[in-house]
Amino acid sequence: MKKRIIIVGGVAGGASVATRLRRLSEENDIVMYEKGAYISFANCGLPYYVGGTIREKDALLVESVENMVKEFNIEVHNNTEVVDIDPEKHIITVKNVLNGETATDHYDRLILSTGGKPIIPKIPGLDQADNVFSVRNIPDVERIKNYIDAHNVRKVTVIGGGFIGLEMTENLVDLGLEVTLVEASPQVMAPLDFEMAQFVHEQIELHGVQLILNDGIARFSGNGHAVVLSSGKEIDTELTVMAIGVLPDSTLAQKAGVKTGIKGAIVVNGHFETNVPDIFAIGDVIEVKDFITGTQTLIPLAGPANRQGRFLADYLNGLDAKNPPVLGTAVAKVFALTVATTGKNERFLKQAGISYRVAHLHPNSHAGYYPGAAPIELKVIYDEQGKILGAQAIGTEGADKRIDIISAVMRLNGSIEDLQLVEVAYAPPYASAKDPVNYAGYIAADQRQGLVKTIEWDEVDALIEKQAYFLDVRESFELATGKLPGSHHIPRGELRGRLAELPKDQPIYVYCSVGLRGYNAARILALNGFDVYNLDGGLKTYEQAKY
Amino acid sequence: MKKRIIIVGGVAGGASVATRLRRLSEENDIVMYEKGAYISFANCGLPYYVGGTIREKDALLVESVENMVKEFNIEVHNNTEVVDIDPEKHIITVKNVLNGETATDHYDRLILSTGGKPIIPKIPGLDQADNVFSVRNIPDVERIKNYIDAHNVRKVTVIGGGFIGLEMTENLVDLGLEVTLVEASPQVMAPLDFEMAQFVHEQIELHGVQLILNDGIARFSGNGHAVVLSSGKEIDTELTVMAIGVLPDSTLAQKAGVKTGIKGAIVVNGHFETNVPDIFAIGDVIEVKDFITGTQTLIPLAGPANRQGRFLADYLNGLDAKNPPVLGTAVAKVFALTVATTGKNERFLKQAGISYRVAHLHPNSHAGYYPGAAPIELKVIYDEQGKILGAQAIGTEGADKRIDIISAVMRLNGSIEDLQLVEVAYAPPYASAKDPVNYAGYIAADQRQGLVKTIEWDEVDALIEKQAYFLDVRESFELATGKLPGSHHIPRGELRGRLAELPKDQPIYVYCSVGLRGYNAARILALNGFDVYNLDGGLKTYEQAKY
Ligand SMILES: Cc1cc2nc3c(=O)[nH]c(=O)nc-3n(C[C@H](O)[C@H](O)[C@H](O)COP(=O)(O)OP(=O)(O)OC[C@H]3O[C@@H](n4cnc5c(N)ncnc54)[C@H](O)[C@@H]3O)c2cc1C
Ligand SMILES: Cc1cc2nc3c(=O)[nH]c(=O)nc-3n(C[C@H](O)[C@H](O)[C@H](O)COP(=O)(O)OP(=O)(O)OC[C@H]3O[C@@H](n4cnc5c(N)ncnc54)[C@H](O)[C@@H]3O)c2cc1C
Ligand SMILES: CC(C)(COP(=O)(O)OP(=O)(O)OC[C@H]1O[C@@H](n2cnc3c(N)ncnc32)[C@H](O)[C@@H]1OP(=O)(O)O)[C@@H](O)C(=O)NCCC(=O)NCCS
Ligand SMILES: CC(C)(COP(=O)(O)OP(=O)(O)OC[C@H]1O[C@@H](n2cnc3c(N)ncnc32)[C@H](O)[C@@H]1OP(=O)(O)O)[C@@H](O)C(=O)NCCC(=O)NCCS
Repeated sequence: MKKRIIIVGGVAGGASVATRLRRLSEENDIVMYEKGAYISFANCGLPYYVGGTIREKDALLVESVENMVKEFNIEVHNNTEVVDIDPEKHIITVKNVLNGETATDHYDRLILSTGGKPIIPKIPGLDQADNVFSVRNIPDVERIKNYIDAHNVRKVTVIGGGFIGLEMTENLVDLGLEVTLVEASPQVMAPLDFEMAQFVHEQIELHGVQLILNDGIARFSGNGHAVVLSSGKEIDTELTVMAIGVLPDSTLAQKAGVKTGIKGAIVVNGHFETNVPDIFAIGDVIEVKDFITGTQTLIPLAGPANRQGRFLADYLNGLDAKNPPVLGTAVAKVFALTVATTGKNERFLKQAGISYRVAHLHPNSHAGYYPGAAPIELKVIYDEQGKILGAQAIGTEGADKRIDIISAVMRLNGSIEDLQLVEVAYAPPYASAKDPVNYAGYIAADQRQGLVKTIEWDEVDALIEKQAYFLDVRESFELATGKLPGSHHIPRGELRGRLAELPKDQPIYVYCSVGLRGYNAARILALNGFDVYNLDGGLKTYEQAKY
Repeated sequence: MKKRIIIVGGVAGGASVATRLRRLSEENDIVMYEKGAYISFANCGLPYYVGGTIREKDALLVESVENMVKEFNIEVHNNTEVVDIDPEKHIITVKNVLNGETATDHYDRLILSTGGKPIIPKIPGLDQADNVFSVRNIPDVERIKNYIDAHNVRKVTVIGGGFIGLEMTENLVDLGLEVTLVEASPQVMAPLDFEMAQFVHEQIELHGVQLILNDGIARFSGNGHAVVLSSGKEIDTELTVMAIGVLPDSTLAQKAGVKTGIKGAIVVNGHFETNVPDIFAIGDVIEVKDFITGTQTLIPLAGPANRQGRFLADYLNGLDAKNPPVLGTAVAKVFALTVATTGKNERFLKQAGISYRVAHLHPNSHAGYYPGAAPIELKVIYDEQGKILGAQAIGTEGADKRIDIISAVMRLNGSIEDLQLVEVAYAPPYASAKDPVNYAGYIAADQRQGLVKTIEWDEVDALIEKQAYFLDVRESFELATGKLPGSHHIPRGELRGRLAELPKDQPIYVYCSVGLRGYNAARILALNGFDVYNLDGGLKTYEQAKY
């Protein structure tokens, strides 16, 4: 029987569910309401339009209203906000945002893909500022571009070091502007752990950005021409971008009695059904099941939104499709660096009381002897059963690839040992005969087999304090660049001949530059009866954490 | 109890097993015999040393003899060939290749990692030629370089279009030489199917190489200064590189009664044991179990050789490690293209009588609106149960990444539907919200759910012949670049209004440029009761196959 399916929100989730609904039925009415002027636009491209990497606004329009009508026979109402839902009567009230006129419409099924809205905290002085912007849609970035041009802006502030804040930072730098980036927590990019985020901090500062961490915005002064931070510090600014996160845009749903949970996100079941009959929801506005923990969480990303749209269309047409748990695999370009993550980080696991082990490594992106190889800073986190809990990779090349491979293994419930077995396509320009992903598996397997005990970068200082026995196994010429205070030194190659110099009555903490030679040395010592630990990730991880 | 473990062959497999053996035991004697001057060198870098991309020979030496001794306490005998094995007495005879002196040595365990040797067919005229070379080791490439310099070579021939032949071709072009590439079969790169190889053929010819397919070498004439092909065609050449494949280097093993199989490869069990007690083998010299078919095969690649070395060391030290089946994931750079494959191709499956389905797609390497996006030519092959049998990807960006992801999913026994669920890290420079890998999953799922019937590029001509009803759904302006002869035309957007023009009594074969609009059109027609097929991969696959 013919149904009238109404979709609220016409971008990632909304447009995806609409097209698939049409491919599965020519009969149903498929109706889309979008309060903005544009549907189906590239939210993710917005920062690059500001910076000029994407030159034409039209490039951001993935599908036009006209095509949606012509190619997909979808009834599209843009510039039209859905302002009310009557779930009993299956009727919505809509308002034309251009002329204020209202109307009603009847649905058999209602799909909410209303997305997330930027958080704009109520801070003093904001109301008096006409130069504070957030980045959600095309009009937003046009306003930013116009303001920069009209006021010949030179000095800008970005509040928030999440991926949107970072992308905006890079793009504003690309415009030649002087940028200050303010982040209230101790690090940018929450999916990273601190020691990994330090690589990003360094990169940001390398590009001339003034990075302020551990300090949040308290108020604006001078009609938005200064940002005053919690510390009292004042920053002159001609334009400010607020990018401190998004909240599920669920006001409409809540009014209609749709059940919400975390931060107001809509609660749906395995088929995207809300508690209200015939109302479904997808995208940034919903809670999803965390693939790792099995608990509910928010993962506002485009991939899941698109996938959920497609799967919901399937379900509504009687095909087998479920609301899949989400890993939250993500990536951002931060100047020359690619920063990619999947699953959970240590900070989260600590807070959640989930026990875990980690491995840090710094392998080459491709064979070291082929030009252009560069280190990938890789961290993997796994539990006692070998389940992979998360991974983080940073580098100028190939970081995204390694996280994607690990993400695939995680999705298939592979173990950390399975990383040893993944056949990564190898030729010198692309990988090594042992790929970074394989190394991660080997190193973790070594840990799990008890071949090596490790200490982490954040345990070093306390051990130095306690005058623990640190053994540096690098070559002599490497010591010039710094060593752990009080550490002893025997180059790895001399170790077997100098075992007598080492104490048998206390633990020995070996280290090298990245962990590899330390591990090899640790094996020699362990096999010779010493109680030995290797510094995971070597001096590089330890020192970078202190950057 | 202390053991003497002797390894024959000191490169990928041999060096890997040696180092891991040492990390697992300080006690055992670990002895390496290598007939060449160098151990642990980068075979895979050899072509790039010829071309000058890798400038220094030293860069090819991953680990030196000196380090192997000093760091790993391994007894290394380079320039020493193992010429005989007495399995009863556990004694080998070795010969110093510099002075011809022989000696014996005793082993508790013997590991053969003797690799593969280039096939040099016995063709007339070869003996009279001093300008024909193969590429296995450092002396080989030094000879090539020296010959080119000494004779001021301008015109060269490469025999064999496998990955070594192609890498040599590219590198000889890089040197500014005029290169002819001769391949006896209808295509280069055997792991590709023909229509995919055509992208590579085009690329090779774009770079000025004379590509001769379907023609093998019959003999050399003029002391190697001409290559005469089976067709009678004669090619002037100043230097010829023979790269028609490798054969397991198992002469030594065979003499000792070690059982061999396919092309003389050593047969080993799940723990790398040969039929002869205390003799083990790894690397290019062994048969491996094919991950897809479960049958025995040869997969001479560096990744497996390294992995086998590590796992054999584990087994010999009582750790849990098995000889894993091999997928054969591989990649080569061919000028601007990356060509990557995993699993089986259609040609193999046809010959083996294994039934399968395929999907061709040409998605962007990253979001189309972000600069630099380029198509990835992707083909996936799967069976009726949804098991992924193989994949091929070609492109200027991101082809390796997609094959690696699919390779990981295959390794974990994921299905083609699982490709829908892989969370590929997405930001505009790296991927799309629906990644190529996800599209492959969606397209295959559509096929498997019966949403679309497809025809393949190689069925088109016969259908045209039979005057089948072809429907072109591209926009009018696109027809100028060519269309299928006799095809009808209705742009996809007009389809719903013009259904009456279409026949209900015969199948309709829709097509567009890449398959996407054709699929959408096929859905409209199917839902309206037509018997419809979409041309998989669109005109692009069909036309490229005719390149
Ligand atoms: C600047 C930026 C960069 C991003 N970069 C990335 C990235 O690199 N990678 C990534 O994975 N994700 C990225 N994202 C996130 C990604 O865009 C979202 O996850 C995705 O768009 C969510 O899809 P959605 O359908 O839930 O919501 P949206 O795509 O946001 O669409 C929701 C739509 O609903 C409309 N709407 C809301 N309420 C109503 C109403 N009552 N009536 C009518 N219409 C309404 C809104 O106007 C909006 O257009 C980025 C987001 C932004 C803003
Ligand atoms: C030019 C070239 C490019 C390649 N590119 C790639 C690539 O991009 N990706 C990839 O995965 N693979 C590539 N390979 C293949 C890869 O190098 C092999 O798979 C790998 O080296 C096999 O390891 P192995 O230990 O079995 O044999 P090898 O590494 O070949 O080592 C065998 C060694 O044994 C020695 N030996 C043999 N018999 C005796 C004896 N009786 N006594 C003493 N020593 C002996 C030989 O001298 C040789 O050095 C390439 C190979 C070549 C030649
Ligand atoms: C583009 C958009 C409207 C979706 O439209 P769509 O028609 O579903 O487009 P897609 O390209 O995703 O998919 C096309 C269909 O063709 C199929 N397809 C793709 N290539 C194909 C090929 N070569 N052969 C056959 N079928 C193909 C796909 O599988 C899909 O069909 P299915 O879902 O029924 O399996 C929606 O994703 C959108 O609005 N995106 C922009 C907004 C957004 O995502 N923002 C966040 C990221 S910036
Ligand atoms: C290099 C070669 C000698 C192997 O030596 P190796 O010592 O095993 O070197 P690797 O770098 O592979 O491994 C080092 C060890 O340190 C570990 N390791 C690597 N990085 C580490 C880190 N950051 N922290 C701790 N451990 C680390 C590895 O897991 C491995 O240990 P394991 O096998 O006991 O788990 C051998 O692979 C070789 O000769 N290669 C060149 C030939 C070749 O492969 N040719 C074909 C391709 S061109």
